[in-house]
Amino acid sequence: MKAVVFNDKDGLKLDNNYAKPVPKKGEALIKVTLAGICNTDYEITKGYMGYNGVLGHEFIGIVEGVNTEGLSDDLKAKSNYLIGKRVTAEISYGCDDPDCEWCAVKNYRHCPNRHTLGIWRKDGCMAEYVTMPINVIFEIPEEVEDEQAVFVEPLAAACEITEQLHIQPIQKVVVLGDGKLGLTTALTLHCQGLDVTLIGKHQNKLNIAKNQGVKTILLNDAKIDNSYDVVVEATGSVSGFETSMGLVKPRGVLVLKSTIATGKELNLAPIVINEITVLGSRCGQFKPALNLLKNKRIDFKPFISKIYSVDEAVEAFEANKAKDTIKILLKF
Amino acid sequence: MKAVVFNDKDGLKLDNNYAKPVPKKGEALIKVTLAGICNTDYEITKGYMGYNGVLGHEFIGIVEGVNTEGLSDDLKAKSNYLIGKRVTAEISYGCDDPDCEWCAVKNYRHCPNRHTLGIWRKDGCMAEYVTMPINVIFEIPEEVEDEQAVFVEPLAAACEITEQLHIQPIQKVVVLGDGKLGLTTALTLHCQGLDVTLIGKHQNKLNIAKNQGVKTILLNDAKIDNSYDVVVEATGSVSGFETSMGLVKPRGVLVLKSTIATGKELNLAPIVINEITVLGSRCGQFKPALNLLKNKRIDFKPFISKIYSVDEAVEAFEANKAKDTIKILLKF
Repeated sequence: MKAVVFNDKDGLKLDNNYAKPVPKKGEALIKVTLAGICNTDYEITKGYMGYNGVLGHEFIGIVEGVNTEGLSDDLKAKSNYLIGKRVTAEISYGCDDPDCEWCAVKNYRHCPNRHTLGIWRKDGCMAEYVTMPINVIFEIPEEVEDEQAVFVEPLAAACEITEQLHIQPIQKVVVLGDGKLGLTTALTLHCQGLDVTLIGKHQNKLNIAKNQGVKTILLNDAKIDNSYDVVVEATGSVSGFETSMGLVKPRGVLVLKSTIATGKELNLAPIVINEITVLGSRCGQFKPALNLLKNKRIDFKPFISKIYSVDEAVEAFEANKAKDTIKILLKF
Repeated sequence: MKAVVFNDKDGLKLDNNYAKPVPKKGEALIKVTLAGICNTDYEITKGYMGYNGVLGHEFIGIVEGVNTEGLSDDLKAKSNYLIGKRVTAEISYGCDDPDCEWCAVKNYRHCPNRHTLGIWRKDGCMAEYVTMPINVIFEIPEEVEDEQAVFVEPLAAACEITEQLHIQPIQKVVVLGDGKLGLTTALTLHCQGLDVTLIGKHQNKLNIAKNQGVKTILLNDAKIDNSYDVVVEATGSVSGFETSMGLVKPRGVLVLKSTIATGKELNLAPIVINEITVLGSRCGQFKPALNLLKNKRIDFKPFISKIYSVDEAVEAFEANKAKDTIKILLKF
């Protein structure tokens, strides 16, 4: 099958003869229809996580088969139901050992023996086929178009913020960075009824959020005066971190949303002096994200810079680097 | 009067003719009897905060007079009561503007117009006399000896952790660093009924906590396996921060207790990947600390490496740098 593969030796390439995966017990075989390029994919091609294999963790597809070997009748029925359905999947699955404190509460993303799609010990979704365990697969509501549904993973990651943190409606929230991560986060917090401002450097990108009701400010016009209760850092840059420290109130919360491969020189003293809480925030649960999509609360269409065929995958990754690109999709 | 002064030009010195301070309206004049050297004082002599003036923020003394000019009868009576009493004072006071959200809740340490004793816009306590506003002055209970009472400020800073963070009795807490900050923090959390382990490099220092019931481990023997719910970083070093990241569980809390003057190269990705909360924690309220002292819950005597006369202040600062020094006090 066709697969977008990265390894240290050959770099990023399209492999036309990658072995089609075989679903293990409890797994489904999914024919991928659409996948998204995330900046994490790009970081992986720079060495992040030391990952080698098929890239990608944002996708939708159609279930072609399930391996129900040895499953209970209940689970068999649940699995067979999925065949032919349009689905997506949460990106991590765990060991499911009854003694694993993370798997016990279905928080697979912190299981020490987890597999994470296209990031850690598991081939990703940028291929004609992918397998995933049935318990992390979600059917996509029929109201949701493909080009919206493919955004469920980054949307879930944005929903994660209010899973981790209680933000009061009276509190002032700011999102720093107008890339896809910042835009998604600002739109999500906005449609959760919070008082959000998005700060970025690009008026054309800010307008995507502005057109959907978010307050926006160009970075040059923003007051950096420690006046926000919650700041979401979505630039992934050293200067972004420093600006965030200037935006957050004493005793406020700085949510870190970006993973960055490189070390940075940072003065941590302001965290202590202003008693800031820095909250690391990664992936999220799909259910609230699918609800937002079903209710058409966010329109992701303006995010799509271009849809490439899988045959143009290497070119698509190049295009992803361009400054005015927001989201690149791959069609299978 | 005699005062221990730092300025950029002359460095640290004992000034025998420093002007005696005059209490402003609502302030008391306190004759200092005992002061402690904190590592923050040492950092200031290296340029931290850009502070110039009398050093010191840990002290006890006797109130010699109060300026009650224009005060209400109530406040006058409260102020006059303090004369002749043995007292100490919280280190920050605010603008007391009715519109200041921090002063409104008496959280003076975050008032943007605050003064902080010996650190920011206010001469410190390493002098024969110091003035402080009456509303931050606390009488020391008679049960508490001078050599215990002088530890109230670092003890309050340790109490601050459970003011900011709900730690459940079942959670595993570790304090990293066996200097005075780490020892105070471990002993405080222990006497708050929490399950605390202190990790450090020096058996003689660890023994001070061990002798008061705290579990201790030498760093070389410690398992760095992401197994603690709460980690308190009390080393102030880059390697300490990195070790802390290795000790804390996914979704756990890393409490930052040290202010460090220099930048550091740090990889923030683990904060995001493991969804760690990094909580900056600085000064604390004196009331809970005075209660712990009154009930003799912690014995600070073993902390005292040496008590110097104020005339030997420069020598005392030198001694504070020595590896096996814990606490140096100055007698006035």
